[in-house]
Amino acid sequence: MRGQLGFGGELVEDPVPLERVRLPDPRLAVPPDLLDICSTSLRDRVTCSCGQAFRDVVRVMRGRVDHPTDVVARPRSEAEVARVLAWAADAGAAVVPHGGGTSVVGGIEPRNLPSRFAGVVTVDLRALNRVLEIDPVSGAARIQAGATGPQLEEQLRADGLSMRFYPQSFECATLGGWIATRAAGHFATGPTRIDDLVESVRAITPTGVWQSRRLPSSGAGPSPDRLLLGSEGTLGLITEAWVRVRPRPRCQALALVSFDDLDAGMYAVRDLAQSGLQPANCRLLDPPEAQRAVGGDGKSSVLLLGFESFDEPVGPRLRRALLRAGRHRARWDEADVSIDDSGAWDAPDQNPTSRSGAVRPRAAAAWRSAFLAMPYLRDLLLRVGVVAETLETAATWDRVRDLVAATKEAVSATAGLPCHVSLRITHAYPDGAAPYLTVLVPARHGDEVDQWDTIKAAATAAVLDTGGTVTHHHAVGRDHRAGYDAEQPGPFAIALRAAKAAVDPGGRLNPGALLDPTALPGRP
Amino acid sequence: MRGQLGFGGELVEDPVPLERVRLPDPRLAVPPDLLDICSTSLRDRVTCSCGQAFRDVVRVMRGRVDHPTDVVARPRSEAEVARVLAWAADAGAAVVPHGGGTSVVGGIEPRNLPSRFAGVVTVDLRALNRVLEIDPVSGAARIQAGATGPQLEEQLRADGLSMRFYPQSFECATLGGWIATRAAGHFATGPTRIDDLVESVRAITPTGVWQSRRLPSSGAGPSPDRLLLGSEGTLGLITEAWVRVRPRPRCQALALVSFDDLDAGMYAVRDLAQSGLQPANCRLLDPPEAQRAVGGDGKSSVLLLGFESFDEPVGPRLRRALLRAGRHRARWDEADVSIDDSGAWDAPDQNPTSRSGAVRPRAAAAWRSAFLAMPYLRDLLLRVGVVAETLETAATWDRVRDLVAATKEAVSATAGLPCHVSLRITHAYPDGAAPYLTVLVPARHGDEVDQWDTIKAAATAAVLDTGGTVTHHHAVGRDHRAGYDAEQPGPFAIALRAAKAAVDPGGRLNPGALLDPTALPGRP
Repeated sequence: MRGQLGFGGELVEDPVPLERVRLPDPRLAVPPDLLDICSTSLRDRVTCSCGQAFRDVVRVMRGRVDHPTDVVARPRSEAEVARVLAWAADAGAAVVPHGGGTSVVGGIEPRNLPSRFAGVVTVDLRALNRVLEIDPVSGAARIQAGATGPQLEEQLRADGLSMRFYPQSFECATLGGWIATRAAGHFATGPTRIDDLVESVRAITPTGVWQSRRLPSSGAGPSPDRLLLGSEGTLGLITEAWVRVRPRPRCQALALVSFDDLDAGMYAVRDLAQSGLQPANCRLLDPPEAQRAVGGDGKSSVLLLGFESFDEPVGPRLRRALLRAGRHRARWDEADVSIDDSGAWDAPDQNPTSRSGAVRPRAAAAWRSAFLAMPYLRDLLLRVGVVAETLETAATWDRVRDLVAATKEAVSATAGLPCHVSLRITHAYPDGAAPYLTVLVPARHGDEVDQWDTIKAAATAAVLDTGGTVTHHHAVGRDHRAGYDAEQPGPFAIALRAAKAAVDPGGRLNPGALLDPTALPGRP
Repeated sequence: MRGQLGFGGELVEDPVPLERVRLPDPRLAVPPDLLDICSTSLRDRVTCSCGQAFRDVVRVMRGRVDHPTDVVARPRSEAEVARVLAWAADAGAAVVPHGGGTSVVGGIEPRNLPSRFAGVVTVDLRALNRVLEIDPVSGAARIQAGATGPQLEEQLRADGLSMRFYPQSFECATLGGWIATRAAGHFATGPTRIDDLVESVRAITPTGVWQSRRLPSSGAGPSPDRLLLGSEGTLGLITEAWVRVRPRPRCQALALVSFDDLDAGMYAVRDLAQSGLQPANCRLLDPPEAQRAVGGDGKSSVLLLGFESFDEPVGPRLRRALLRAGRHRARWDEADVSIDDSGAWDAPDQNPTSRSGAVRPRAAAAWRSAFLAMPYLRDLLLRVGVVAETLETAATWDRVRDLVAATKEAVSATAGLPCHVSLRITHAYPDGAAPYLTVLVPARHGDEVDQWDTIKAAATAAVLDTGGTVTHHHAVGRDHRAGYDAEQPGPFAIALRAAKAAVDPGGRLNPGALLDPTALPGRP
């Protein structure tokens, strides 16, 4: 890495071991009837008090747990969820719902709570991890919210089904977390957001059970599911959902194509997104990203192009997509094209990012490894003194190019030199795209949190100034809240705060995430 | 018709002419500075006080305008919308937003208003009918809310673009009305709902301008657009929106296929909806519907199957779809298959339901005429003593068959004999479908409103009991409100009412539509 970056490795830091972390005593006493599902152990309190943002990783590496939760509850049933909520209300505690703990935006850290709370109960929902019911006729499954990606896929596989929803957090994150944060999966086009896969949601709220009907579509008023989607645990604890599933794909076509010019690659992605061909994968990597992920030459941009289906051949669609890319001066090697329309292709059991699985074009396989390894690599880089973090957004096509330029500029100007900012396009829509920037800068030892927060603030300002959204798929949490406040339509902000105050009158659910708890109606 | 139905035509009734309709004097005095955009004329008050439901048509035919609005305002700019709203607030009046006036659910009739209102101002937004801006790069257009289907398509056509959104209300309804009611277009699969075509919305609310960002997608909190979509004028007056547009299609493939067995047709529709082939049209007509619409033999069900695209060939997709339909014992005549992949096909300027347009298979052309003529035919049938009305819903595939049977049964049992109930599947999703029933019964002269309301109540109960939604694309309005109350998740109902009370503290906007005005927070 030092060869590529020109810095890093001067110091190799070891993480503070868990047993040396010191936490204040829990402020809450667990009642006897909840003792068997509640923990106040050091390990549980530490691991459930922060997510996977850079600012989390650097603090935990140093043994800093700034805002520890007091109790981690692990309900095994919806009834136990309700009992935990009732106790928290009695005890005057705040409640933080917890899925896989992969938030990169401070979504689960009980930071700066209003002082009226006597403490914090983190409700870890991962014991609710079963596929409860499958409707093979409609192609839908009722799944508990705490199931992780591998857990739910393993259970669906028995029926030859799959959600085909693979965010980078796939291994650890949970269905409930995806819904609460409006996660986006690996499909680059089409139904890439969890929003489109949700048929109905069930949540426990302080004012009762929120259960929507299973419906393929409805025109009855504003969609209730769309209000829970993105609510980030502030309206209720999601306990289960009916989601759309599909037969496991049996046909697959993949290609890696190169562009001398990043702009040409962007035109190709736009063309493909607007073509109606709906590639499952259509990710563009700029030269440094391509070099790191698929061993590119450091000068070419690379497009990962993939199609999959249950039993319709996809080879012809890939060939049409390649023709289109060719109009934008794409180059490719036939060794990097792989088509299996035999109907015998077996999608890997895990994340398509997995190292295992069927034979693939060599470079695509390399990319998948890199994609999976990235979050782990980030942690390692920190240990050798490199701040490595990502920025993501979405904008309409007319603004993407200016947005990327302005954001890169803001990051570089704030970070100073040396600073590496590279670009991927992770999702492509007919009317816009999701640019994703990776930032690598030398860490200011001991001051990394402030260092990154300053860069992040400058980047967010640039993104919002140039027409982007504060987040395409990382959610709002606590880290993006200022930007979110700026982005929301005024009357919508009023509506959402009123809805929150009515459904959760105690303001107890995940205070500080998504909404400023001091700005809720009826609270000083 | 009498030959087919066995009744009707005993009496042919003429509508009461407009000049014989009597209305009470308007309860509001228009201030001088709004005189040029406000009307209290008989014609305006009558035509803006009811929609196009059967209960509207029968009453208007008899000259009964039960709940007349007092003033019809026709703002020509957003500033004038704000001025009208300010006057209404000063005058203590309720405000009913008005688009094309095509509501079939009492969405625009100021029925049973709380007595605290001094009167009603209907705000007809149809003077705001321009395409303001086109972004050809992203494929999006900024369009004023009062533009009707033909108006906006005509303006988009100059740039070779189209929304390709064709509900049956296309000729009269407006973009703002479609958004407010979550309308669904003629695409049977894929982005059929206006929800998916909206990039951002702008509305004037009592608490300020609600303007969302133009974004292809975002993960920043619950979607603000999705709260306005379906709000039916209760949160604000939609003045404009950015919507996704596409190049006018140049390739088209159409076929009509028959099934001896309706169930086999349903299997075929499900198979096609789950195949990923995404037909633009995939509508199934049962034997009586097929007979009326495309001259079927009265025994076969007919599937209308169509594909379209800008420049990708669609013939191969139609052939694959026909292969799939063949597995379900579909039969077709090659004369009813038409493929034009030359790239020279020119989509008709108006509704694809238009009688004009390019050459099409004979039966498809007949269907399109029938589809367009249906709402007009309904009015004629009423004059000859036939109650002709439709019921629509959506449900997951596992429930569609039972739902249709139970609803038919409930209608027949309530209506008594003779009674004709026929079925179409208008929209198909991977996980479910939208059944659409047409009911024809002899009218009980003078009592038709009660007669239909009783049938409708029985049908709605059956739909909700068997897992359907109270409406797939007709909206809630006032007619579906009881069913909607039953369908909503409890805490969502609390959230929505709180949001409404916060954004519209006077409860002034379209009171009685969507929400019971007596059940809003802070109101007795």
